Amino acid sequence: MMKSTDLTHHISRRYNKDLEDLRNHVLEMGGLVETQLADAITALVTGDSELGLRVAHDDYKVNRYEVNIDEECSRILATRAPAASDLRLIVAIIKTITDLERVGDEAEKIGFLASKLAGMDRPSDSYREVKNLGNHVLRMLRDAMDAFSRLDVDAALAVVPEDEIADQEYEAIARQCITFMMEDPRSINRVMNVTWAARALERIGDHAKNICEYVIYMVQGRDVRHTLKANKSGTSGVEAPK
Amino acid sequence: MMKSTDLTHHISRRYNKDLEDLRNHVLEMGGLVETQLADAITALVTGDSELGLRVAHDDYKVNRYEVNIDEECSRILATRAPAASDLRLIVAIIKTITDLERVGDEAEKIGFLASKLAGMDRPSDSYREVKNLGNHVLRMLRDAMDAFSRLDVDAALAVVPEDEIADQEYEAIARQCITFMMEDPRSINRVMNVTWAARALERIGDHAKNICEYVIYMVQGRDVRHTLKANKSGTSGVEAPK
Repeated sequence: MMKSTDLTHHISRRYNKDLEDLRNHVLEMGGLVETQLADAITALVTGDSELGLRVAHDDYKVNRYEVNIDEECSRILATRAPAASDLRLIVAIIKTITDLERVGDEAEKIGFLASKLAGMDRPSDSYREVKNLGNHVLRMLRDAMDAFSRLDVDAALAVVPEDEIADQEYEAIARQCITFMMEDPRSINRVMNVTWAARALERIGDHAKNICEYVIYMVQGRDVRHTLKANKSGTSGVEAPK
Repeated sequence: MMKSTDLTHHISRRYNKDLEDLRNHVLEMGGLVETQLADAITALVTGDSELGLRVAHDDYKVNRYEVNIDEECSRILATRAPAASDLRLIVAIIKTITDLERVGDEAEKIGFLASKLAGMDRPSDSYREVKNLGNHVLRMLRDAMDAFSRLDVDAALAVVPEDEIADQEYEAIARQCITFMMEDPRSINRVMNVTWAARALERIGDHAKNICEYVIYMVQGRDVRHTLKANKSGTSGVEAPK
């Protein structure tokens, strides 16, 4: 028969194994989403219709991860009743995978748009600005997931201001697109697709920022959402209690 | 001294009160978001710049609800270790308020766009199609929050297919916008703002659908996300285990 201390040890080892598995599944999901995004960007800037459609088709794999990890979280919450930092880890994971799933949705959209754009005229700059924005948000996503895996608050904090730069890059592209359309109304159909793709990339930057905010919450136990945004935009009253 | 049964009774009454408060705060947040959305739509279709800016300014109130409710959820998870249906309620709330907060963000965007559009030419139809889409997604959001408040799976299931109709309404507006821009390139600046507003409304439909899926999960304990979507689009393999 097992001694009580052995049993406790066994349970706690099993519990740590559950948390470790959970964390690894989130990192796997993050890796898959990064690949989807990288492929979507390649499809867009190289005009590879087939690759774009493959990204769109493979989004179900991302969704599957989300549903499975959600179940793991619910099971651990129900059977282990985790406290303090473990609880924050699980709440942060529930939120992180929602953002990862939405990055997957945006990559799916970009894949479809890439496949449409592949059949249209290509501009002489081969979508250089869009490529830059894409690489920027891809780097943000990678850095966010690195910060998550190392529970690194400083790394997470470093990503947050990047989102504002990505927003500016997006705004520049959107303005440029409007100018193109005005100069050559026949390009409107094509250029609208470029605008949608840039918009999707901009939103991916938002999601990367969200993930970093969950990392900070997870490690420090304080919720920095909206306060970071508020500091940036100078809005007051956001931190006031309800 | 309190008897043990009294104490248990006291604790469970206190616990139920906590859950009841939590639920009420989510409904209050939903009510605020509905008002924000309704005002944003009014600002857009009546060209009321001031109202649009007020909606944009008031978004911080929505954010404050999200942060506070998140804290309530974490506190209840940590101190009460809820099981089964209570646990599902809390997980569903953590997800629901994320979607409500994003509806708030979209309403904020629409408010800004309304204020920009108020200073521009108005089309003869006073944005009738956009108004219809706006009213449609507002109704979806109300129905979603009603389903949440009554834990009504049938009502939640009834909202899900509405999202596809909202998507079609949005697609029609987007196509119409492209036609307008081609016919009159001087309208591009204005019409792009209309397109962005319609896109924001379309995304609100997505969020309303998400909330309904959480209601179904909460009541039935099964995760219907992506499977409902999969049935619709005929994608296979979504339900397969990882």
